[in-house]
Amino acid sequence: MTTQPAAVVDTPPVGTTMRALVKERAEPGAQIREVPVPEPGPGELLIRVEAASVCGTDVHIERWDPWAQENFGPPPMIFGHEMAGTVVARGPGATRVPVGETVAVETHFVDWTCYQCRTGRAHVCQNMRILGVHRPGSFAQFVAIPEVNAWVAEGLAPEIAALQEPLGNAVHAAFVEDVAGQTAVVTGCGPIGLMSIAVLKMAGARAVYATDLNEERLDLARQMGADLALDARDNVVERLRSETDGDGVDIVLEMSGSAAALHQGLAVVTNGGRVSLLGTHTAPATLDLSQEIIFRGVRLYGITGRRLWDTWYRTTALLEEGLDIAPIISHRLPLSEYEQAFDLVASGHAGKIVLLPQE
Amino acid sequence: MTTQPAAVVDTPPVGTTMRALVKERAEPGAQIREVPVPEPGPGELLIRVEAASVCGTDVHIERWDPWAQENFGPPPMIFGHEMAGTVVARGPGATRVPVGETVAVETHFVDWTCYQCRTGRAHVCQNMRILGVHRPGSFAQFVAIPEVNAWVAEGLAPEIAALQEPLGNAVHAAFVEDVAGQTAVVTGCGPIGLMSIAVLKMAGARAVYATDLNEERLDLARQMGADLALDARDNVVERLRSETDGDGVDIVLEMSGSAAALHQGLAVVTNGGRVSLLGTHTAPATLDLSQEIIFRGVRLYGITGRRLWDTWYRTTALLEEGLDIAPIISHRLPLSEYEQAFDLVASGHAGKIVLLPQE
Amino acid sequence: MTTQPAAVVDTPPVGTTMRALVKERAEPGAQIREVPVPEPGPGELLIRVEAASVCGTDVHIERWDPWAQENFGPPPMIFGHEMAGTVVARGPGATRVPVGETVAVETHFVDWTCYQCRTGRAHVCQNMRILGVHRPGSFAQFVAIPEVNAWVAEGLAPEIAALQEPLGNAVHAAFVEDVAGQTAVVTGCGPIGLMSIAVLKMAGARAVYATDLNEERLDLARQMGADLALDARDNVVERLRSETDGDGVDIVLEMSGSAAALHQGLAVVTNGGRVSLLGTHTAPATLDLSQEIIFRGVRLYGITGRRLWDTWYRTTALLEEGLDIAPIISHRLPLSEYEQAFDLVASGHAGKIVLLPQE
Amino acid sequence: MTTQPAAVVDTPPVGTTMRALVKERAEPGAQIREVPVPEPGPGELLIRVEAASVCGTDVHIERWDPWAQENFGPPPMIFGHEMAGTVVARGPGATRVPVGETVAVETHFVDWTCYQCRTGRAHVCQNMRILGVHRPGSFAQFVAIPEVNAWVAEGLAPEIAALQEPLGNAVHAAFVEDVAGQTAVVTGCGPIGLMSIAVLKMAGARAVYATDLNEERLDLARQMGADLALDARDNVVERLRSETDGDGVDIVLEMSGSAAALHQGLAVVTNGGRVSLLGTHTAPATLDLSQEIIFRGVRLYGITGRRLWDTWYRTTALLEEGLDIAPIISHRLPLSEYEQAFDLVASGHAGKIVLLPQE
Repeated sequence: MTTQPAAVVDTPPVGTTMRALVKERAEPGAQIREVPVPEPGPGELLIRVEAASVCGTDVHIERWDPWAQENFGPPPMIFGHEMAGTVVARGPGATRVPVGETVAVETHFVDWTCYQCRTGRAHVCQNMRILGVHRPGSFAQFVAIPEVNAWVAEGLAPEIAALQEPLGNAVHAAFVEDVAGQTAVVTGCGPIGLMSIAVLKMAGARAVYATDLNEERLDLARQMGADLALDARDNVVERLRSETDGDGVDIVLEMSGSAAALHQGLAVVTNGGRVSLLGTHTAPATLDLSQEIIFRGVRLYGITGRRLWDTWYRTTALLEEGLDIAPIISHRLPLSEYEQAFDLVASGHAGKIVLLPQE
Repeated sequence: MTTQPAAVVDTPPVGTTMRALVKERAEPGAQIREVPVPEPGPGELLIRVEAASVCGTDVHIERWDPWAQENFGPPPMIFGHEMAGTVVARGPGATRVPVGETVAVETHFVDWTCYQCRTGRAHVCQNMRILGVHRPGSFAQFVAIPEVNAWVAEGLAPEIAALQEPLGNAVHAAFVEDVAGQTAVVTGCGPIGLMSIAVLKMAGARAVYATDLNEERLDLARQMGADLALDARDNVVERLRSETDGDGVDIVLEMSGSAAALHQGLAVVTNGGRVSLLGTHTAPATLDLSQEIIFRGVRLYGITGRRLWDTWYRTTALLEEGLDIAPIISHRLPLSEYEQAFDLVASGHAGKIVLLPQE
Repeated sequence: MTTQPAAVVDTPPVGTTMRALVKERAEPGAQIREVPVPEPGPGELLIRVEAASVCGTDVHIERWDPWAQENFGPPPMIFGHEMAGTVVARGPGATRVPVGETVAVETHFVDWTCYQCRTGRAHVCQNMRILGVHRPGSFAQFVAIPEVNAWVAEGLAPEIAALQEPLGNAVHAAFVEDVAGQTAVVTGCGPIGLMSIAVLKMAGARAVYATDLNEERLDLARQMGADLALDARDNVVERLRSETDGDGVDIVLEMSGSAAALHQGLAVVTNGGRVSLLGTHTAPATLDLSQEIIFRGVRLYGITGRRLWDTWYRTTALLEEGLDIAPIISHRLPLSEYEQAFDLVASGHAGKIVLLPQE
Repeated sequence: MTTQPAAVVDTPPVGTTMRALVKERAEPGAQIREVPVPEPGPGELLIRVEAASVCGTDVHIERWDPWAQENFGPPPMIFGHEMAGTVVARGPGATRVPVGETVAVETHFVDWTCYQCRTGRAHVCQNMRILGVHRPGSFAQFVAIPEVNAWVAEGLAPEIAALQEPLGNAVHAAFVEDVAGQTAVVTGCGPIGLMSIAVLKMAGARAVYATDLNEERLDLARQMGADLALDARDNVVERLRSETDGDGVDIVLEMSGSAAALHQGLAVVTNGGRVSLLGTHTAPATLDLSQEIIFRGVRLYGITGRRLWDTWYRTTALLEEGLDIAPIISHRLPLSEYEQAFDLVASGHAGKIVLLPQE
């Protein structure tokens, strides 16, 4: 991976204006606008955004689907959350991260005082606020964030640093139990699924299988190290049972949000195996709990966000060891070409798209 | 609990006949028949059955429901599985348990050679055989079982020893993670749910809540130690959120097999909490995986059987410490009154019923 | 346990003076002095100390032993750390705990930014500061502490609230793995050892054994629920092997700081069992690592402090469930009688001593 | 790795004689003798030994050191235990492994009935018997073993299959907790230490450091993938603290049996980190338990043998994934050259030595 020297910053741009992608009204669409550069509040950092990758959530917001209607805003507000950038100014009391440092951002802002935050489970804080969903986001030249959410990404290219956020989802889902010497199947080869394949391989999984409906993604799965990538419409259960001497796979990472994929995963998981659920299910799923889960002694883990900060340490470590996630980046576009970016993501024919607000 | 001196046995009854409850044909019903006393094969014990409690599964077999049609037999075969008795003879190679000993029985016969059995998960053996389902069962004066499945129950009353099998289900479900200082809700107060309440209390749970639709069972729940027992049609979620300062409960033990109960459990479990699924779901359950599980970081454990033999050690330990499960026994009947027993279980107006084959 | 209504506080005592026990010079001894009431800084609370119990560490400081010489101060400084009291004023930014609330205090002040603090192990923070060791302590009428270290103890008697700190040590040591249905031996029946006996019993331990050299303490051990309390000079290993059918005990809580006790613990722990090391060893211990630990597959846990905040939640839960630690309090004395208190602790003939700074 | 077709065996060699290395008397030395081929008893397999690697234990037996005097025999008896070979005959009741199959051997024969064996800890069975220590071993052309101890090693070269036994030690020590994204130091680069380096790297460790006193072994450590291999007399603690930004390493695998190495390991392990103790300590070790373990919240795991059979599954998986342990084999010698083999091992100037009984 390439590195980029941290910028030397003399004059914070407070008081000036910047380009940003704003959801202006509670309706489909978004607009590039010139807006004031935010001022970092107490304990906050002002970040110049060097790379802001596009998540499916951003498309939901732009398209203004029911989830967005219920959760976003209120408009007008800048959206976008996966990001990395350079610290250009610090608000009062922010002293840990120096100006000029490259940082990635933990996009979930937690209250640090609820039961979950006080018992090692801040990633499911009862009062979670999300960057670009509940407060102004990263599709902009600058963004202010709490310093505690800045993860130093020294030496990482900004586009890779930005991807640590979804990579962290993959790491969280994969490492909820150990994986060395175990077989695994990843159902769903979107960006997080693809990254999880590489994570599993690097952590010593015995074999990693992947399924998807999209042949381009299956090719990427093979490129990320999958030992076998199968069209989900083929005889997946029989194939994977056969690959594992009839035992089934030890680990299922459900990354598709599809009930059909989950049923396949449950059909191939070995008795007493485990399933991480990460893909967002937009429709209810109907399960035969007795046959699919109970009588087979299966464990299911609902996975959201990243463990603070265990997941970030491990994510950084894997990148240091040489984990290469660059192949999943299919496009790098200036922020102004956001419409093309969202269309590509919606089409399913893109890997990860990185928007560049400074270009 | 009372104890009963182990019988002194001089002459094994091999070659004689015994009374047994036989499912004779693939249709509803069952018959008391005089059949040969089984002969213990290599590595087997012959047990005189002192107590055989009735499980819901036995009713399914007697009524010949779809599950029974698919799994039982083939007829003619004796059924029944929860049991305790006295060792009266040993087959070749059976040397661990002496004649005269009182034993309970692990009703799941595993192959000890599959992947699961060789990795500490024999309770989900790929080639499981169940007493009274796949081979002749305990509703009889004598039964032959593999010696490895005999659990010495010295000093326990046979009816309590027999209940170690379903009690083990409760212990397994409760102890899949630790419980001390945690809040818990048991959804479904059948015998296993009721026993799990007592188990949780004895293991230092902070508070144990219980739900059911049946007021008699809720009374039993209170008797077993529930801090609060609620009609599931009442405002359970609001009540339990209120009891826990809004945090929700740490542990859900789903013992009802009802999707509605599971939804309630998922609605009250704290973010990052855990759910044990044990109740058999005869109908599919439709879940909003994203909202109920994924975004809240919940863990679900499918629970079946008992861990071999960790669960049995802990079950014995709890009984030694004074765990009192006798209150859940509502009836003790001679084997010949099996019809009344099954009707009572089916009615939902009984606790646990113990059949006595020697009377 | 009795409760005490939270005080209504109108005028914070800032600017006035208070009585305090001060280690004035780097030499044995301590003095009651009239000193200024501290002013709560940013994020701090000012607490009126209602109860301050005496820890062995306090005696080390007063006696000025080598540990104190290396760690304390610098003098002049108030010492004492186990405490509970009433919030009487809040510094800027302290908003979570209301004035008038009764609180206990987590006496370890951590930096929240080191590797340990950011990975769920703040109790072993690399930059730990301890109340009454590194900054002014609780043997005073008032003390200022970071609000984040205040644990609301609503409804608890101050002397019990103060004991949550050492009780938390016991809970931490006991619950490092689960205990339900397991046998345990507590080696060393000082206050923390005694509390751990009650904790183990409440959490469903199968049997709890205790050892000490002091017959008074063994009597207290029995009172706290020990199934068997043995003079460590008696045939402990043989007795406990016999009590456990030759298997040995599952759990050892080493609370004495004595190498001899640790050897006994290692001799009675079952193969594959676990040992929590909490007692402070002032002398090196010589171990046969191969025979005592390696070939027997034993796990040792070094235990210090309390997990933040999991241990505190569990400690509070146990007290709510009825855990009774009052019997270990042997003396309640005004602060001015500190010399008697320290002499009693040093003699080994006291349980826990609570100093009352307001009397 | 190369593979070797399983032999076709027509006539079991029972009744004939074979060459074997026999410890004839309770004194130093050993002799090649012609002895009867053993007959496989009930449940046993007769194995033709294709490769028998030399363990330090074998040297202890040959040299007749105090450990050997206490544990071995009684003489006369064949020794040797690390091995792989071909099944040539099966005793009554042995049916799982076919004649002609290549197998490795779990050298610890457990009783399967004690508390440990019945609770997933058979590797610390109370009645362990070891191949070549308590019953005739593998330094022979043929050996009889219980079928349950045969691990199918289809497709593995016999010398690699034989090394699965010590490799399993390394896997057990490394995987007692997960390692992905963690830093580790291996203290002691004998064969097991060297293999553990490769295991850690393959399982995604962030960085693996190694120490030894022997420069040849440090070279091998680098060859096995160590990121840094240091002479233990150099400033190891400072170097590794520096490499880890002052945090220390997450994992210590103590493979040397040296107290000095353990002290170094404890000095560099991060607060709250973990240490696996595997190297056999022949002398007592003196530890400052408070400073080295307790106040730093360190966990120590005594490691012996291999978990049955989780470790074997993972060991096989790693070999399948491409783990290459061949570089640690420094010599392949006919059985008759055993004296040279033992001298080389004793000198510390050999890697692993494989004896070939059929040559």
